[in-house]
Amino acid sequence: MSIEVLKKLGKKLINDIQKNENPSLDVPIRTLSNITYDPKTKLIKLGNKTAKRYLFNVAHIKKFVQTIETAAISKELIEVNKHLNLREVYYKMRRTIPDTNINIVDEQEETNKAIEDLELITGLSREQLHFNADRNGFAAGNIIIKDRGHIIDWSKMGSGGWAIPSNVEEIEFKKVDAKFIIYIEKAATWERLNEDRVWEKLNCVIICSKGQATRGIRRLLQRLNLEHNLPVYVLVDLDPWGIYIYSVLKFGSISLAHISESLTIPGAKYLGLTPDDVEKYGLKRHIEKYKDVDLKRLEEVSNYEWFKHDKRWQLFFSKMRELKGKVEIAALTERGISFISDSYLVEKIKNKDWIE
Amino acid sequence: MSIEVLKKLGKKLINDIQKNENPSLDVPIRTLSNITYDPKTKLIKLGNKTAKRYLFNVAHIKKFVQTIETAAISKELIEVNKHLNLREVYYKMRRTIPDTNINIVDEQEETNKAIEDLELITGLSREQLHFNADRNGFAAGNIIIKDRGHIIDWSKMGSGGWAIPSNVEEIEFKKVDAKFIIYIEKAATWERLNEDRVWEKLNCVIICSKGQATRGIRRLLQRLNLEHNLPVYVLVDLDPWGIYIYSVLKFGSISLAHISESLTIPGAKYLGLTPDDVEKYGLKRHIEKYKDVDLKRLEEVSNYEWFKHDKRWQLFFSKMRELKGKVEIAALTERGISFISDSYLVEKIKNKDWIE
Repeated sequence: MSIEVLKKLGKKLINDIQKNENPSLDVPIRTLSNITYDPKTKLIKLGNKTAKRYLFNVAHIKKFVQTIETAAISKELIEVNKHLNLREVYYKMRRTIPDTNINIVDEQEETNKAIEDLELITGLSREQLHFNADRNGFAAGNIIIKDRGHIIDWSKMGSGGWAIPSNVEEIEFKKVDAKFIIYIEKAATWERLNEDRVWEKLNCVIICSKGQATRGIRRLLQRLNLEHNLPVYVLVDLDPWGIYIYSVLKFGSISLAHISESLTIPGAKYLGLTPDDVEKYGLKRHIEKYKDVDLKRLEEVSNYEWFKHDKRWQLFFSKMRELKGKVEIAALTERGISFISDSYLVEKIKNKDWIE
Repeated sequence: MSIEVLKKLGKKLINDIQKNENPSLDVPIRTLSNITYDPKTKLIKLGNKTAKRYLFNVAHIKKFVQTIETAAISKELIEVNKHLNLREVYYKMRRTIPDTNINIVDEQEETNKAIEDLELITGLSREQLHFNADRNGFAAGNIIIKDRGHIIDWSKMGSGGWAIPSNVEEIEFKKVDAKFIIYIEKAATWERLNEDRVWEKLNCVIICSKGQATRGIRRLLQRLNLEHNLPVYVLVDLDPWGIYIYSVLKFGSISLAHISESLTIPGAKYLGLTPDDVEKYGLKRHIEKYKDVDLKRLEEVSNYEWFKHDKRWQLFFSKMRELKGKVEIAALTERGISFISDSYLVEKIKNKDWIE
């Protein structure tokens, strides 16, 4: 349990003091040099390098105290079974050390970093430590969950859906009838699929996070994938930003490399628009010319380690270059209000027309 | 019914044609000169000026055709009981007129404007015409609704809440036990209040839209206010942006002046942080110095017609200037994890310590 890990950390420090040693922490290093892509697990991961941080060291003491303060707040939160947002943690930590004019933290960046260090030291995620980040997104489909004592049936959520919280660690999946999950980039597409009851027709779950998935949603997708074997299909626009959304879900990200294992879905499948779809569905007239920033991003994304040696993806990227522009999922509307629900998705899933 | 209004519009045009007249539309003018603040109704409203738009007029024909095209799409949507997002409507309209190389629309801006014109001509809101915009936000509390055949109990939504859709026109309120609504600017504050079950303790509803309220949320608040007499309290940070969120909810906005009556809540009350709270709750050390953009916004907001002649607000603004910076609701966390739920809100509501 999280609380035991925190208590062990505290005891270790007390032990250091009782032995008249300088209290210290082993903090894994998070610089780029310690981050690698592991082709076997298909994860962006943190290496094994660590650094020792001491209490009695002028260069270390501030960060040392900040980290221990976050551990104390985490322990308090777990004991009273409450959660705090990162911003609130910052205000809680922003106090002056008695008889000095030194604040424990002056900027939220310091709190955030201290929390990341605590994640690294304890091996627990921010969410397990009862710290929450921003939230976004909603879900509908054939799953019943239990959350804070409530039974919530995602197939009875009307036009809105169930709003996904920032922290999904304590959610129980009571009944999972759905056979797969469609993760959707755009809210408008989600509303289209929900109105067309796609989750009922295809027996699935539809989840949207409006752009890049939040940590809460990544963890929710991962839990459903790991605990219930639900494949995750990623439905995004045909542009470098859409591919990046898929990339983060599947391989992880550099900034969260230390927590890749509890956030990524290595089996995630790309179900977004493809250059071939543009031809097949007659969407050429809806190509929106790349701006410089799009082209730059396209080159960056296509050069990622995990795409670089993948012929299928390299072909995809070269066709994207030939298109000379982006195409949105919403462009399918020209073929009919519910074309995406009745034809596009049904065909793609029937023909296994996705990219792994 | 919406469909009757659209049919009437179509018949009027056919009638024009049969009488050999140039088909025309009366479109209310939306320039600033036709927008006023009405101190009696406390609404930002559109005046009575209209302009005639003709089919056979080179300066008018494009907009004329675009408006009629949106009417045709709206009729189709209402008939099949579906909805389209503004972006999807744009793609649906983006077709080439046969035997020409002219597209009905080239930019989404044109579709959006045509839809606004249709709102003005028909007196129906975009939502009643089955056009949806962006969505955001979530709700929890003592209300049971019926939506698309589902009974949804907002008091049994776990840690997430019910996700609020873009269009709330067709929602039925089946049981309203709540006595008031707290509208919350920040998702973190909403999660705090939800975890502390404030909606249960104070018998209310908590709604969040992450910043400026969407049209869907404004309409939801307004419907609960009008149909069930629920007062709306607005819980925002102490800065010009927070005050503006309150201002839009209560008085409307210039860009949506034509639809003020179906979106605003003239009785909305400001329950956000006040300069006096900063003193009372010892938050002075959490003042974050104004940037130039904040100061500029403060002057703009304090000069709005509806604040300019209100002594209480002018005193408020002058105290804001004296503070020289912003203060966030989250700063209350320093007083205790649940201080906002257990003390701040309870006291404010008990003492009617809000601003109308």
